[in-house]
Amino acid sequence: MNSIAQRTIQTIRVLAADMVEAAQSGHPGMPMGSASIAYVLWTKVLRYSPRNPAWLNRDRFVLSAGHGSSLLYALLYLTGYDMTLDDLKSFRQWGSRTPGHPEYGVTPGVEVTTGPLGQGFANGVGMAIAQKALAARFNREGFDLFNYRVFGIVGDGDLMEGISHEAASIAGHQHLGNLVYLYDDNRITIDGPTELAFSDDIMASFSALHWHVQEVDGDDPEAIEMALQAAIAEKDRPSLIKARTHIGNGAPTKHDSSAAHGAPLGTEELRGLKKHYGFDPDKSFIIPADVLEHMRTVGAERARFEEEWTRLLDRYEKEHPALAEEFTRPAVQYEFLDSMIPLAHGKPMATRKASGMALNEAAKYNPMLMGGSADLSSSNNVIIKGAPMFSPEARQGRHIHFGVREHAMAAITNGMSLSPPIIPYCGTFLVFSDYMRPAIRVAAMSGYPVIYIFSHDSIGVGEDGPTHQPVEQLAALRAIPNLVVLRPADANETLAAWQAALARRNGPTVLVTTRQSVPVFGTEMARKARNVKHGAYILEGHIDVTPDVVLIATGSEVHVALEAAKQLRPQGYEVRVVSMPSWELFEEQPEEYKRAVLPSEIPNRVIVEAGIRQGWERYGGQAGRYVTMDTFGASAPGEVLYEKFHITAERVVREVRDLLGTPAPTQAAN
Amino acid sequence: MNSIAQRTIQTIRVLAADMVEAAQSGHPGMPMGSASIAYVLWTKVLRYSPRNPAWLNRDRFVLSAGHGSSLLYALLYLTGYDMTLDDLKSFRQWGSRTPGHPEYGVTPGVEVTTGPLGQGFANGVGMAIAQKALAARFNREGFDLFNYRVFGIVGDGDLMEGISHEAASIAGHQHLGNLVYLYDDNRITIDGPTELAFSDDIMASFSALHWHVQEVDGDDPEAIEMALQAAIAEKDRPSLIKARTHIGNGAPTKHDSSAAHGAPLGTEELRGLKKHYGFDPDKSFIIPADVLEHMRTVGAERARFEEEWTRLLDRYEKEHPALAEEFTRPAVQYEFLDSMIPLAHGKPMATRKASGMALNEAAKYNPMLMGGSADLSSSNNVIIKGAPMFSPEARQGRHIHFGVREHAMAAITNGMSLSPPIIPYCGTFLVFSDYMRPAIRVAAMSGYPVIYIFSHDSIGVGEDGPTHQPVEQLAALRAIPNLVVLRPADANETLAAWQAALARRNGPTVLVTTRQSVPVFGTEMARKARNVKHGAYILEGHIDVTPDVVLIATGSEVHVALEAAKQLRPQGYEVRVVSMPSWELFEEQPEEYKRAVLPSEIPNRVIVEAGIRQGWERYGGQAGRYVTMDTFGASAPGEVLYEKFHITAERVVREVRDLLGTPAPTQAAN
Repeated sequence: MNSIAQRTIQTIRVLAADMVEAAQSGHPGMPMGSASIAYVLWTKVLRYSPRNPAWLNRDRFVLSAGHGSSLLYALLYLTGYDMTLDDLKSFRQWGSRTPGHPEYGVTPGVEVTTGPLGQGFANGVGMAIAQKALAARFNREGFDLFNYRVFGIVGDGDLMEGISHEAASIAGHQHLGNLVYLYDDNRITIDGPTELAFSDDIMASFSALHWHVQEVDGDDPEAIEMALQAAIAEKDRPSLIKARTHIGNGAPTKHDSSAAHGAPLGTEELRGLKKHYGFDPDKSFIIPADVLEHMRTVGAERARFEEEWTRLLDRYEKEHPALAEEFTRPAVQYEFLDSMIPLAHGKPMATRKASGMALNEAAKYNPMLMGGSADLSSSNNVIIKGAPMFSPEARQGRHIHFGVREHAMAAITNGMSLSPPIIPYCGTFLVFSDYMRPAIRVAAMSGYPVIYIFSHDSIGVGEDGPTHQPVEQLAALRAIPNLVVLRPADANETLAAWQAALARRNGPTVLVTTRQSVPVFGTEMARKARNVKHGAYILEGHIDVTPDVVLIATGSEVHVALEAAKQLRPQGYEVRVVSMPSWELFEEQPEEYKRAVLPSEIPNRVIVEAGIRQGWERYGGQAGRYVTMDTFGASAPGEVLYEKFHITAERVVREVRDLLGTPAPTQAAN
Repeated sequence: MNSIAQRTIQTIRVLAADMVEAAQSGHPGMPMGSASIAYVLWTKVLRYSPRNPAWLNRDRFVLSAGHGSSLLYALLYLTGYDMTLDDLKSFRQWGSRTPGHPEYGVTPGVEVTTGPLGQGFANGVGMAIAQKALAARFNREGFDLFNYRVFGIVGDGDLMEGISHEAASIAGHQHLGNLVYLYDDNRITIDGPTELAFSDDIMASFSALHWHVQEVDGDDPEAIEMALQAAIAEKDRPSLIKARTHIGNGAPTKHDSSAAHGAPLGTEELRGLKKHYGFDPDKSFIIPADVLEHMRTVGAERARFEEEWTRLLDRYEKEHPALAEEFTRPAVQYEFLDSMIPLAHGKPMATRKASGMALNEAAKYNPMLMGGSADLSSSNNVIIKGAPMFSPEARQGRHIHFGVREHAMAAITNGMSLSPPIIPYCGTFLVFSDYMRPAIRVAAMSGYPVIYIFSHDSIGVGEDGPTHQPVEQLAALRAIPNLVVLRPADANETLAAWQAALARRNGPTVLVTTRQSVPVFGTEMARKARNVKHGAYILEGHIDVTPDVVLIATGSEVHVALEAAKQLRPQGYEVRVVSMPSWELFEEQPEEYKRAVLPSEIPNRVIVEAGIRQGWERYGGQAGRYVTMDTFGASAPGEVLYEKFHITAERVVREVRDLLGTPAPTQAAN
C-alpha cells in the first residue's frame, strides 16, 4: 500500500478516537477497525459530490453500524463536504452537526438515520429498489441516467437483527445487483466476543439468500478494492463482503477488545494509539497536511462523476423534457382527490376499499407512487390495478410483494422515500404495525414522507381474535412524535385522508382503515369531509349552536356516534358530533378553530373509539365519558364484539343521559 | 399406510374444513395440508397426557402457524382432551374454547398463544431452553425427570419473519437438540405462490445456523415418522424437517391454491372434498366411529408416558424431597426485598444499578430466576454474579447472551415463562422495547409472568442521541392492556418494583430504570417506597393536609419534583409530591385510596416525566400543567438535555406559580 493511503487510514483512526475522547462519549472501536474498508470504498469506488450531497445519481453510502458515526463524519470532513474541524470537535454536543448516531437532515452527506441496528441494512435495500425503479422509468437509450449503487457497512449487530435477514431475503429475491455491503467482521460485541451469542455461518447464510459473498482481510486495501470491484461486476445478486477487521485497531491494550466498543479509549490508551501510528501523543485533532490534501483531491476527483452526469442531464432535458421535469422538479399531485368529494353513492363500503380507490386514482397522477404489502395485498387494498409486480424482470413494476416481513417492509419503504420522485407506501394489518415500530419511529424522527396503510383497524376484525385485533395500536402510534395518524370514517374521509398523506412531505403518515363495511356519508356530510385536513371537524350540529353534549369519534365509530345522536335528538338533547380522524392535524390548527370545534365551556363529552382511551382524556376531560376498549378483544363475529364490548349507540345514549340527566336540560323533547 | 391412519388424516381434513365452513371464517387450507404431518407427530412421537395437559414432562407442541388452529382443536378433541364436538362446532364464536387462533389459557392442550407469525417459533426455542435448564437443575442419576422435547409446525410466513431467524440462530448456537420443527412447505401464501416473495434456500439457510435439516414428502407418513425419529436421534442440533404439503389438500379446485388459505371452502367445494375422501357430502362434523376409537386409543397410549413418569416422580420425591418440592409446588420468593427497605446510604445510584442489586438478591432465593440481555448485559445490569453463562456446556447457566436479537429474546423469554419454576427476565434499552413489542403484546394477552427490564429510560441517555432516547415508549407500553409498567424513582423504589414484578404471576411486568445516577431517598422517604405496589403514593406532604398543588412524577423526575417542592414551600405553597411508578397498579387500588392520593378537589396538578404527556391527562386533567416531552430528544450530555427540553425544577416552579399566582393563595411566605 502506498504510504499516503496508510497514513490517511491511521489519521481516520486517530481522529475518530479523538472525537470520542473529546466528547467523553462514543464508540471509537468500530471506526478504528473499519477505517481501511471505508477508506478504500470512499477513495476508489464510491461516486459522490462533496459540494452537492443531493446529486441525484450519487452512490448511496449507508453506515448501518451507526454507532461508528465518527468514521462517517471524518470521511465527510476529509473529502470536502460542508463540514469543519470544529464540527468534529463538537461531536455529540448540543446543536452540533455531529450527533451520536448519524441523523438524516442534520449532517450534509448523511443519507439516512442509523443506529437502531438493522435499520440501515434494510434502508439500503429500499434505496437499491429505488434505483431500479428510477432507471426503469427515466433511463433511455443513450441515457443511463440513474445507475447509482448502494454501499454500506454493516456490523455483527446488524446481522443478528431479524430485520436484516428479512431485508437480505428480499434483496436476494429481487436480484439487487446494485447493492454492496461490507460486513465489518471484528468479532466483538458489547458483551464480549461475538462467539458468546453468534455462530451463524454468514457466508453460507447469505448464499442461501442468493447473495454473492466474498471474504477479505479488512486491512488489505488491495484485496478490499478487488472485492468491491468483483461485487460491482456482479449484476444479478447483491453482494456481501465479509471483511475481517480489528476493533480498536492500533490501541495498545484495547485492540480486539470489547473495551474499545462503546467508551472513550482513555488518555493513556489514546496516547499509546497515537504513538503507535506516529502521531504526537500530546496533540489532538491533528490532520497531516498531505493527508488532508490527498483526501480533498479525492473528493474533487469523485465530484467529476457529477460533472459528467450533469452534461448527460443537459442533453436529456432537451431530448426528454417532460421526463426530466418529473425528477428535477418533483411535485406530488393530490388535489384531484378533493374534487372526488362528495362521493355519496349510498352503498356501505369498507374504508380499506375506499383507500384502494384513492390509491388507484392517485397512481394515475403520480407515476412513481409505488409500494406493496406484507402478504396482505388484497386485504389492505394496496394494489395499483394494471401495474405489473416489481420484479427482476419488471423493474417498472409498482407493486412489491414484501412477503411476511413487516419490519423490513417498513424500513425498505423508508429507504425508498429518500429517492424522490418516488412516493412509497406499504401496508399490513394495524395490529402488525407493532412489528414495524422501530422503522416507523426512525421515519418520524427523520421526516421521511412514507405512507403506511393499516387496514383491519379494530375488533371489527372479528373471528381472527385478539391476536389480530388492534386495541392499543392507535394510541401507540399517536404516541410517536411527528407521525400523523389518520383514521377516516367513510369513503369521503378516506379520500381526504389520502390527500393529507400525499400532501405531507416532511414526515410519515399512517392511514388506518376498516375491514368491515361502513356507511358512506350523504352528500351534505360528505362535503364536510374535506375538513379531514384539519384533524377534527363538526360533522353534525351547528357551529353557532351550543350543544348539550359533544360526541367525538373516529373511523367506524363515527357512525356509532351519528346513530346515537339520531336517537338522542328526539329526546331533546342538542348533540354535536365531531369527527376526529387525526389528533396531530387538529393540534396543528389555530386555537380559535380548536375552540370552535371543541368549546371548552362544554365539559359534557363522549369519546367513541374501539381502541383504548389512553390520551383521549385530552379531549374528553375528566368529566367525559369513554366508550372505548380497556382489554384485548376476542374471537367472534365483529358485530357481536361491538355488542359484547359495548361500543354501541345504545351505550353512547346511556352515557349521555347519565351525564345530562333526563329529560334534557336545555330543551323539551320534540 | 394402514387405512385407519389414512381415514383419520382425511377425517381431520374434512373436520377442519367443516369448522371453518360453520364459522364462515377461518383458514381451512393449512390444516388440510398438514394433516398428515400432524397425525404422525401426534400418534407416533409426541408424548402427552390428554387428561392432564399440565403434566410437567409432556412434550410441547407449538402450532406456530396459528391460523391452522382448527387442526390443533381437531387433534385435541380426537385424542381425548377435555373438549367436545360442540367446542369444534362453535369455532370462532363468542365465549367458545376454540378461538380463531390458539390462545393460551382458553383451550386445554394449547401450550402457547400463536397467530402473529414467528412468535410460536421463538416461543418453542424458549421452551427448549427451559427443558435444558430444568434438566440441569432437577435431573439426577437415575432420574431423567425432565427430558421432554419441543415440536412445532411452522409455515412459510413464520420463516419469512425476522424473529424466526433470530430465534433459529440462538437455537443453533445453543445446540438445542431437543427442538424439532416441521416446516409445512405448501408453497402458498395469502398473496399467491410463495415464489412471489420467498426464494430462500431454507435447507442451506438453516444448515448455516447449525440446524439438522431433512426434506420429506408431507403426505408420506412413513417418511415423516422416519424423519422425526432421525430428528430426535440428533441430540446436538435443533432439527428442521421440510415437509412438502399441499394447501387445501383434496379440495376439487382449491388444492394448492391460495383460495384455500383464509376463507371457507364454500358449499360446493366442501361437498367435493367430502366426496373425494368418501364422506357423505350432505353431512357435517362426521367422525367415523373407528377413527374416533383409534384416536382415543392413541391418546390413552400416549398418556402412559405420564403414568411411567409419575412413578419416577414418586421415587424422586423420596430421594430428593427438597428438589421435588421446588417444582411440584413452585413458589416465588420476594418478601426479602421489602425487608431491604429502607436502603438509604446517601450516595446517588442509577436505578439500573439498584435493579441489578435486587436481581442478585432475588436470585439467591429463587434458584430458577434466569434471563439475559440483548448484548447489553452490563448496561442493563441483568447479570447474576457468580452464575455461569447458559451454554451447551453449562446448562445450569443462568445468564443467556441473546445477542442483538431483542424480538426473539422477548418471545424466547415468553416461552421460558411457561415452564415454572423458571422465572425468566430479559433486558435491553427502553427505546428498543419497540423491537420486542409484538412479543410483549402476546405475553400481556396471555398472562405470561415475564419480567422485562428496560434501562436507559429517557433523554438521560445523553450523547447517543434521539435514536437511543425513549420519549414515547412509556406511553406505548402503558397502552398495552394487562401489562404492568413500573418506573421507580430511586434504589428503594427499585427494590419495591422488583418485588411487585416477582409477585405478579398472572401477567408480564416492565421495569424501567435510569442510565444516570439519581439520589437515593433518605430513610423516612425510603420507608414509604414500599407503597410502590399501590402504583402511586404520597412521597412528600401529609395526607390530611389539603395541598395547593400536587406534583406527580415518576422515576428520575421524582427528584425534579422534590427539588421544585423544596423551592416552592418557602414561598408559601403547600405542595404534595406524589410518586407514581405505575399507572396500572394505581388503577387497581380502591377508589378511596386513589382519591386520598389524588384528591379530585385539587385541580392544580403538575405532571413531571421525561416522556410524552399522552395519557397523563387522566391524572393531570385539563387544568394541569405538563412538564413532559413533545418531540424526540437530541445528542448531548444528559444534563444539558434536561435543561434544553425544560424538564427542570425551575420549570416546575414556574408552572406552579403560573397556576396558583404569586404569592401563594393559602398561606403567606415563611
